[in-house]
Amino acid sequence: MEIPNTHPRKLSLESRQKIVDGAMDGLLADSAMIAHGRGEAFDYLLGERTTQSASRAIIEASARLASAVNPVISVNGNTVLLAGEDAIRVAAVLGCSIEVNLYYRTPERVSGLISLLEEQRIAVSSRGSPSGFVGDWTEAVGKVSFLGLDPNFRILGLEGPRSKCTEAGIGLADTILVPLEDGDRCEALVGLGKEVLVIDLNPLSRSSMMASVTIVDEVSRAFKGILSELLSGTQPPSEWDNMSVLKEGLREISESVGRIPGD
Amino acid sequence: MEIPNTHPRKLSLESRQKIVDGAMDGLLADSAMIAHGRGEAFDYLLGERTTQSASRAIIEASARLASAVNPVISVNGNTVLLAGEDAIRVAAVLGCSIEVNLYYRTPERVSGLISLLEEQRIAVSSRGSPSGFVGDWTEAVGKVSFLGLDPNFRILGLEGPRSKCTEAGIGLADTILVPLEDGDRCEALVGLGKEVLVIDLNPLSRSSMMASVTIVDEVSRAFKGILSELLSGTQPPSEWDNMSVLKEGLREISESVGRIPGD
Repeated sequence: MEIPNTHPRKLSLESRQKIVDGAMDGLLADSAMIAHGRGEAFDYLLGERTTQSASRAIIEASARLASAVNPVISVNGNTVLLAGEDAIRVAAVLGCSIEVNLYYRTPERVSGLISLLEEQRIAVSSRGSPSGFVGDWTEAVGKVSFLGLDPNFRILGLEGPRSKCTEAGIGLADTILVPLEDGDRCEALVGLGKEVLVIDLNPLSRSSMMASVTIVDEVSRAFKGILSELLSGTQPPSEWDNMSVLKEGLREISESVGRIPGD
Repeated sequence: MEIPNTHPRKLSLESRQKIVDGAMDGLLADSAMIAHGRGEAFDYLLGERTTQSASRAIIEASARLASAVNPVISVNGNTVLLAGEDAIRVAAVLGCSIEVNLYYRTPERVSGLISLLEEQRIAVSSRGSPSGFVGDWTEAVGKVSFLGLDPNFRILGLEGPRSKCTEAGIGLADTILVPLEDGDRCEALVGLGKEVLVIDLNPLSRSSMMASVTIVDEVSRAFKGILSELLSGTQPPSEWDNMSVLKEGLREISESVGRIPGD
């Protein structure tokens, strides 16, 4: 199915197809498509663009990633399908790992997603370095570790399979960039004293409310924004009022009222 | 998976499970789960309740159904899974048919959904008449026709499989109650001069904007509201400003801003 370039919602429809295809390939949990639909609705209300408040959150999250000692990027199936290449670029610039961490963990899905990341790595490498990057791009991309296949650590405060993680990744990280995270897990990570930087289109979700910094934006746009911030040079982290940025996100959503014609 | 009765979002989680199960059973198109997720997000913002503006739309839609000459209820897979029994009750009270009408039509899905409706009919019959109903409930429920297996008519203005319908149902209807409809089809039906009563959680969707009356509510709650209106006696249809009700729905959504703590 080819969507014409002129279609105003082309990117959104292409993302939807990636999720449908990923589900067919067995890479997603049963309810991942439903989660994607929720995201679509919020993005639609945001006008499918990075809003001003999201831009501020992207700047702050980038600053915290740049000043972290052990940053890590935690990804689930939807993130790999929608923004795997973007995540690899950010990891290559930061020199950090990517951990596949699934709420409904099965070894098959973790290994399927790591295989997909390996394919995406080749694409990222072959497309050359992003503007502003200094160094050997192929080497930087090649060095990104994909963790998660052999979890040897637990997130304290959680039970069962969803507590599993790797020591080298989430276990030892001081700062975690985690798109589309479950609320319980976000809360547990914050409780361990980690900086938790969340990307979530729903400003009212528990993850959004729990996070140190919440970027209310579509995951691929958010990663692209972070990449560009990291490459153009970041400031030190600031005092940050996360609740006020969530309120601003909701205000931006409520402005959709203006899109109804008439009156 | 048993959700405790005390869970504040029990109904929403049960609905999600119905959609996941229906997808596993092959009753839904690929992107039906994504559509459900979009609905979940809007319902979440509405507070998962029938709002004041939705109540007004339910009253108006019920009035138009009661005064219609040939009303019909058009259903897709999500509607049958989420609210099939509710739709059968409304059809029994109105003495009208239910037509399975799918955007991505396959004979297997139409016949699977009609089989499910037949099961639901038995449940509706055995649970007895709703309060306020006068007459023989078993007979009324037994008389509801399930159409759609042999489409012998076309919706003018549409091409391909999605134009197919039955003459006895959508073809001859003057008033169509159609939850979760596609925008193009809604526009075509309105263009044919029919009353199109839409149930859609997204007040900004093309269906919502095109409809004669839009009920911005979850499909099962909306059917229950219509049933109760029909049984308590309706007024004649009124002048109706559909855009103003959509704006009110968006205003109700924007009030979710107040749910963020702090300040």
